[in-house]
Amino acid sequence: MARVWSLSEVARHNSPSDRVYDVTEFLPEHPGGAKIILKYAGRDATAAYEPIHPKDALEKNLSPEKHLGSIDSTGARELKEEQASRKKTQDEIRVERAKAIKRPINHILSLQDMENVAREVLSHKTWAFYRSAADDEITYNENRLAFSRFFFHPRVLRPISNVDPSTTILGFPSSLPIFVSAASLGKLGHPLGEVNITRGAGRTGIIQMVSTYSSCSHAEIAAARVNASQPLFLQLYKDKNSPVSEKLLRDVEGLGYNAIFLTVDAPLNGNRERDLRAPFELEEQERLVEEAKNPMGNAGEMPERPEDADNTLVEGELVLIGTSGGLRTTGDLDQSWEVTLPWLRRTTKLPIVLKGIQTVADAVKAVEVGVDGILLSNHGGRQMEYSLPPLEVLYRILYIDGGVHRGTDVLKALCLGAKAVGLGRAFHFALSAYGEAGVVQTVRILQREIILGMRLLGATRLSDLTPEMVERVDWQPFLSKL
Amino acid sequence: MARVWSLSEVARHNSPSDRVYDVTEFLPEHPGGAKIILKYAGRDATAAYEPIHPKDALEKNLSPEKHLGSIDSTGARELKEEQASRKKTQDEIRVERAKAIKRPINHILSLQDMENVAREVLSHKTWAFYRSAADDEITYNENRLAFSRFFFHPRVLRPISNVDPSTTILGFPSSLPIFVSAASLGKLGHPLGEVNITRGAGRTGIIQMVSTYSSCSHAEIAAARVNASQPLFLQLYKDKNSPVSEKLLRDVEGLGYNAIFLTVDAPLNGNRERDLRAPFELEEQERLVEEAKNPMGNAGEMPERPEDADNTLVEGELVLIGTSGGLRTTGDLDQSWEVTLPWLRRTTKLPIVLKGIQTVADAVKAVEVGVDGILLSNHGGRQMEYSLPPLEVLYRILYIDGGVHRGTDVLKALCLGAKAVGLGRAFHFALSAYGEAGVVQTVRILQREIILGMRLLGATRLSDLTPEMVERVDWQPFLSKL
Amino acid sequence: MARVWSLSEVARHNSPSDRVYDVTEFLPEHPGGAKIILKYAGRDATAAYEPIHPKDALEKNLSPEKHLGSIDSTGARELKEEQASRKKTQDEIRVERAKAIKRPINHILSLQDMENVAREVLSHKTWAFYRSAADDEITYNENRLAFSRFFFHPRVLRPISNVDPSTTILGFPSSLPIFVSAASLGKLGHPLGEVNITRGAGRTGIIQMVSTYSSCSHAEIAAARVNASQPLFLQLYKDKNSPVSEKLLRDVEGLGYNAIFLTVDAPLNGNRERDLRAPFELEEQERLVEEAKNPMGNAGEMPERPEDADNTLVEGELVLIGTSGGLRTTGDLDQSWEVTLPWLRRTTKLPIVLKGIQTVADAVKAVEVGVDGILLSNHGGRQMEYSLPPLEVLYRILYIDGGVHRGTDVLKALCLGAKAVGLGRAFHFALSAYGEAGVVQTVRILQREIILGMRLLGATRLSDLTPEMVERVDWQPFLSKL
Amino acid sequence: MARVWSLSEVARHNSPSDRVYDVTEFLPEHPGGAKIILKYAGRDATAAYEPIHPKDALEKNLSPEKHLGSIDSTGARELKEEQASRKKTQDEIRVERAKAIKRPINHILSLQDMENVAREVLSHKTWAFYRSAADDEITYNENRLAFSRFFFHPRVLRPISNVDPSTTILGFPSSLPIFVSAASLGKLGHPLGEVNITRGAGRTGIIQMVSTYSSCSHAEIAAARVNASQPLFLQLYKDKNSPVSEKLLRDVEGLGYNAIFLTVDAPLNGNRERDLRAPFELEEQERLVEEAKNPMGNAGEMPERPEDADNTLVEGELVLIGTSGGLRTTGDLDQSWEVTLPWLRRTTKLPIVLKGIQTVADAVKAVEVGVDGILLSNHGGRQMEYSLPPLEVLYRILYIDGGVHRGTDVLKALCLGAKAVGLGRAFHFALSAYGEAGVVQTVRILQREIILGMRLLGATRLSDLTPEMVERVDWQPFLSKL
Repeated sequence: MARVWSLSEVARHNSPSDRVYDVTEFLPEHPGGAKIILKYAGRDATAAYEPIHPKDALEKNLSPEKHLGSIDSTGARELKEEQASRKKTQDEIRVERAKAIKRPINHILSLQDMENVAREVLSHKTWAFYRSAADDEITYNENRLAFSRFFFHPRVLRPISNVDPSTTILGFPSSLPIFVSAASLGKLGHPLGEVNITRGAGRTGIIQMVSTYSSCSHAEIAAARVNASQPLFLQLYKDKNSPVSEKLLRDVEGLGYNAIFLTVDAPLNGNRERDLRAPFELEEQERLVEEAKNPMGNAGEMPERPEDADNTLVEGELVLIGTSGGLRTTGDLDQSWEVTLPWLRRTTKLPIVLKGIQTVADAVKAVEVGVDGILLSNHGGRQMEYSLPPLEVLYRILYIDGGVHRGTDVLKALCLGAKAVGLGRAFHFALSAYGEAGVVQTVRILQREIILGMRLLGATRLSDLTPEMVERVDWQPFLSKL
Repeated sequence: MARVWSLSEVARHNSPSDRVYDVTEFLPEHPGGAKIILKYAGRDATAAYEPIHPKDALEKNLSPEKHLGSIDSTGARELKEEQASRKKTQDEIRVERAKAIKRPINHILSLQDMENVAREVLSHKTWAFYRSAADDEITYNENRLAFSRFFFHPRVLRPISNVDPSTTILGFPSSLPIFVSAASLGKLGHPLGEVNITRGAGRTGIIQMVSTYSSCSHAEIAAARVNASQPLFLQLYKDKNSPVSEKLLRDVEGLGYNAIFLTVDAPLNGNRERDLRAPFELEEQERLVEEAKNPMGNAGEMPERPEDADNTLVEGELVLIGTSGGLRTTGDLDQSWEVTLPWLRRTTKLPIVLKGIQTVADAVKAVEVGVDGILLSNHGGRQMEYSLPPLEVLYRILYIDGGVHRGTDVLKALCLGAKAVGLGRAFHFALSAYGEAGVVQTVRILQREIILGMRLLGATRLSDLTPEMVERVDWQPFLSKL
Repeated sequence: MARVWSLSEVARHNSPSDRVYDVTEFLPEHPGGAKIILKYAGRDATAAYEPIHPKDALEKNLSPEKHLGSIDSTGARELKEEQASRKKTQDEIRVERAKAIKRPINHILSLQDMENVAREVLSHKTWAFYRSAADDEITYNENRLAFSRFFFHPRVLRPISNVDPSTTILGFPSSLPIFVSAASLGKLGHPLGEVNITRGAGRTGIIQMVSTYSSCSHAEIAAARVNASQPLFLQLYKDKNSPVSEKLLRDVEGLGYNAIFLTVDAPLNGNRERDLRAPFELEEQERLVEEAKNPMGNAGEMPERPEDADNTLVEGELVLIGTSGGLRTTGDLDQSWEVTLPWLRRTTKLPIVLKGIQTVADAVKAVEVGVDGILLSNHGGRQMEYSLPPLEVLYRILYIDGGVHRGTDVLKALCLGAKAVGLGRAFHFALSAYGEAGVVQTVRILQREIILGMRLLGATRLSDLTPEMVERVDWQPFLSKL
Repeated sequence: MARVWSLSEVARHNSPSDRVYDVTEFLPEHPGGAKIILKYAGRDATAAYEPIHPKDALEKNLSPEKHLGSIDSTGARELKEEQASRKKTQDEIRVERAKAIKRPINHILSLQDMENVAREVLSHKTWAFYRSAADDEITYNENRLAFSRFFFHPRVLRPISNVDPSTTILGFPSSLPIFVSAASLGKLGHPLGEVNITRGAGRTGIIQMVSTYSSCSHAEIAAARVNASQPLFLQLYKDKNSPVSEKLLRDVEGLGYNAIFLTVDAPLNGNRERDLRAPFELEEQERLVEEAKNPMGNAGEMPERPEDADNTLVEGELVLIGTSGGLRTTGDLDQSWEVTLPWLRRTTKLPIVLKGIQTVADAVKAVEVGVDGILLSNHGGRQMEYSLPPLEVLYRILYIDGGVHRGTDVLKALCLGAKAVGLGRAFHFALSAYGEAGVVQTVRILQREIILGMRLLGATRLSDLTPEMVERVDWQPFLSKL
């Protein structure tokens, strides 16, 4: 079936590649949209493809007859050398240098430190994708600021030598009242991808929720567990083509995953401008470097952009492409309480948690329909701009993620009734900065902060954390580091 | 009637010109005041005149016998060459460069992006005129900040594949719940002026409100419609000489305009200091360049400004001249509920909307007298400083403009009861940046943001947007980009 | 009586001078304290003396036998030349340059512009004295910020061509609802001193309140009135030696002053650190210039300040000297409702206003004892730090000063019940920047802003300004220019 | 017993030293933890040891047989010279220069000035230790900001020449309503350490509370009193080994200390990141200097940190070392109302105050159990992040420290019911900046501010300061100097 393709044949498609695939029929089913595939049609897409897709993605999604065959490598070496000798971009130079002088991991004292290192060592595009949030990032900032408006009432003269911050989540033991909230495309940050988190979570006794779009396959992640009893949760983006999601659910059940977190706040992606803007910013950066070499003198010669050119804009909706902008074109826009939940109940026997509840009204509804849990979240501020910070809605709802940067943030949420708190970006920053060791360090920082905070509050068990211990003040504290 | 004038005859008036007019009797009727005309008396006023006046302004406002005749062009070429060879100002150099490296329009992701490009490519004076607002621009900023204090309650698990954001305004169909609010002097931003907006609005199905003082004639704008059914509204500044306004109303009715928005918050102009200050700032900029060439050494030689000079200030009120400062000297200062509204009803059969209502008391009054609509507005913060942001007064009033920068702003206003939302400066920034294509891009950005926002809110029709979906929080969110 | 003193005799006192005085017995009575006199003992004190004292100060305060005589000028010219050739300080160079490029007065559009020019052309020390306020200047800032929290409800469709902002203050006519609040030492800002204000106020029809410590004599100020009916008010700092104040009251009554504003918030001066710090800052500035010429290399050689030196600090209270710090040592610390007011009633027949009432309790007390008026003021933030902004206490009290920068500020105060609003620093900034013309320009700016504001509010008489027209909002607006 | 050790013997332990100790058995009892001792094992620990420990620390804590003997100085001089000739660090150069140009003490007008000088002349590490606070220093900032939300109602026309701000604390006379709150390791700031405070407090008539971990011995401090009646309080950190604390209490009672302040908010240290981070920052500073000499060119050659290295992180909790991070490992984690207070009552007859009460609930409890006083404090923001500012909890509680920077802050606390106010860091900054003279200057600044503030408020006795004189406003004033 798979015949050998000569480079000249491929060249007719523009450039060489190790394997040759026919993706014509698959185009409309690609979760990232057809456009991004067509951009690479006939070219070597390896570099763009690998950090985004699990290894088994092609096997799973393309039927064998679309695997047209391997490549005749004649001439391939020359092409690779040519590519290697190409001038580095400013961003590549920056990242190379940042990696060379990266701080040792024992200098990392807080999650903010970890994020700072991640920002330094990540490419601008990956940073933009991980860090991005909706519109002007008001919700992103408010998620965090909300925590700053809750103050503690620490009690004194209580014995605190013996502290136990462990709990259970959906019945599974967790060493701390935190878990890893799903985030996709971990290989953009580290060659081993989400597997770093799996190992780090296993070593520290916390639970990982895995994204539908993790860049490691769900099987690789299951295989990376420190032992067979390490729990794993799946975050489900329901596909508009239900059988696709049904197959996924069967697969992860077979791999031993332990619960399903159905994402309800992101049937399509929010307007993540930081992500969309990243390629333009890189272009501008290169232009400025060119200009610095070849300054102003020629400015007079630059042709003014003709007004007509502006008018050639084609009709129709704006088309936007970015790392995230292109993703999620296969989301089910018509999910509903009436159809989607019964379908999910039928499809899986695993516990079901709704991830992305943002209002009390929907929380009540969720309780009425009898799901196993609610994750109060606005997707880290990536979806609906001006969605209220989860902490402000928390008072009576179970799980929560968004805005957490400190163990004290976790304690505030627990005082207000949360059972555990998820962190998403924090773990991607950690793996980007130091791989598995970064994941472990992140958990340890939180562990230290949680235990210290409990002691200084006069609490030794999570059940000692009560609403009377926090107070929402009526002013906005000054945050010098925002 | 029109005899030929020799340059030497004109020279007696100081400099050449293509046509010669006698404006003596017209001076007191000039809406921009007599002063600004006298500044150019006997000189070629073409460059200052053209971007501010519609083509038919002289024909309409000067009786034929004041058209003294055309110019004998002998010597004119030399004068033009001389003018062309004059040294460019720093501001002209800046604008030229900005136009040369202007970002392609597909990089424009938000209205703020569009405004940023407009700021770069507009002359300092035009930017100051468009962007200016009253006094210290508190009201301007608060108009925008008010939106940031309203948060959403997004609902989940609702089918959202089919979204329709269309509506009607005064019975006329609109593809989106937005319209173009009037702004004058569009030719300062783009040679085609407000016609760019007419075409862009026609292509995207929204409605344009045209200023009394548009720099394209009302006839040109009517002629630019994509088809005869494209609606147009007139924003009316009532003239103190009522027949002037009566003629205008007859004209636009004849041209097929569909409604009249009577401006009630601007019988005279507010104190727009940014605009008034712009010429001084340009002077200072040139002085600094001179000084840089010829530094300090001579500072000792500069004569101290004699105290006496300060004392020569003539008695009387301050006289201020600026692009806007000089405008609107013919406004009717004595408009009233008792006289002006009955007069307007008698003069036109078109629907009447009051533009510039700022208080609940006046809104109630407007309902009582039975106008067809209210546009809650403080003139984009250009009139009364410390007028409350429209959004803060909105709860029960119909149309609104001021402060809108995002589709989510539109949605907040609609949740609170507005029927549609006007944008003024945004479209002038758009035409300044990219002409008609900029106008279209602006609508598309808002369209995308409105549709995405509706989906993430769980709304598919404008009627799904209800007060329960927004909440005014009791703190001021942090806006990093203000 | 007055014999001639030879320079050698004076030299024994350290340096020459035009006149020779014996101030020994006067020392304890000097309002600026004995210390500042002793600093100049035996030296030429002309430059330090003149801008601070009225011309008649020596005649009035030293009995004739203390005028020891005139100076033998032999050698005086050489000394003056030597002084003139001395190197200019950085601050003198800065001021010289600022005066050379000072903006023409017609560029001054707002009181903030005027203040900016004053800051540029004033010496650092004079600026510090004029602008200074207590401690960290919280009260100074809050005085101004308080105005920003009051918003307007502008009414529309009201005839506004005919506006009259005139009023009366204590029965005396005023063209505007503003007056000049007393501020001392005007000659530091302009050689003609407070007389600039007298003339400017006369030309514009507003009333000046004159400081007890004006640098022009009260007689000079009376003589500078544009006509005999121009009203003048005296601000009285009661002296601990009552006859001193009694003589002052008799004098100003004789000169035709029309009312007495007894200062009750400043029996001694507040902690005006900006003023106290100015001489240290100038020293540091010169040191840095020296260091720039003679950099770091020698740093190693600089002797470390010996710890012992620190320990030589003498016992007792801190002694502070600054332009204001030394003033007001003769204030009456034991003023009281029971003693001071009856004394004042006995001493003068003029109307009495209490200046510096800061609480409702004291305002009520003032009404009970039957004074002619109350000036709600915290001394422009110069006395008690964290005194509430006058506007926040205003609701039911008569006159007010502090924080006013705009005509709209005046209108807000009037809406809330104030009868007129005083401005102090503003007029000193004006005379420093442009002399009398600056004073006139300041009034005109306020006039324009008041009239424009009244029109845009739909008000034509001051009595149209009602509490319903303002609203205190529950957030702090963003002030970009603070 | 103490034999002579040869350098070669010690060299086997790595480097020479003046004395040789065997600390093996003491390791677990070291309040700073075993780790910090092991870091210096076999090396000369003098420089690190001296500024942190009282002179009698070794005698008191190591039994005589652990004093192994003195050092054979052969070769020691060479080693010292070698050490002296080593290149100075950037931080040492900075401090040296700062000391050379230190402002004279009479330029110090406020506690903020004093803090600024301290910051300049202290080493980065000592500054970080003194200034550090928990986590992101929100609580530290809020302690101070809380004062800015309380405004005064100053009364006028009250006799104020005679002001007396004296009071008693626990029955002991104090010239002002302030006292020195305990802070440790004063020798880091000044070679004479806390004795500077003892003398300054004696000279100015205020009371010093001495830390358990003062760097001067409790006997040295007692000996430094200006006379035998000068009161001293001991701040007690209860040791987990109760007899250690019992001995301390017996000792200070014998030395004439007058009260015990039991610290209840710090059984272990908070997360003081500024302190922990200081050594990393110094490292980075040196690296940057190296890099500046040897720029970029070699960047390509820097080996990328291998991922494996990151993974070598050992299991277990984070171990952190810093000036404070290592301290307090011997704190009693199991203190309680039931056990600790009765133990303290049994152990000492001195008055007992609980230091570190943070909630009304615990204040009530303290009153019930009958202690002699409560010090409302959150340890200057060094312990539990987001503990409420003391001033916000004050309304009904006795003593208070935290956030005080001005005499007006003291007055606000007294108006709200506090009996006296403690300052901790302020005195360490003062001794660091100017030794004993700095301590005196600090008291005088506060004295001047307190007396001036009382006068401007119309108060002459502390009992005149009533709750009616302050008002908590509902906005956050603007603090330009934060």
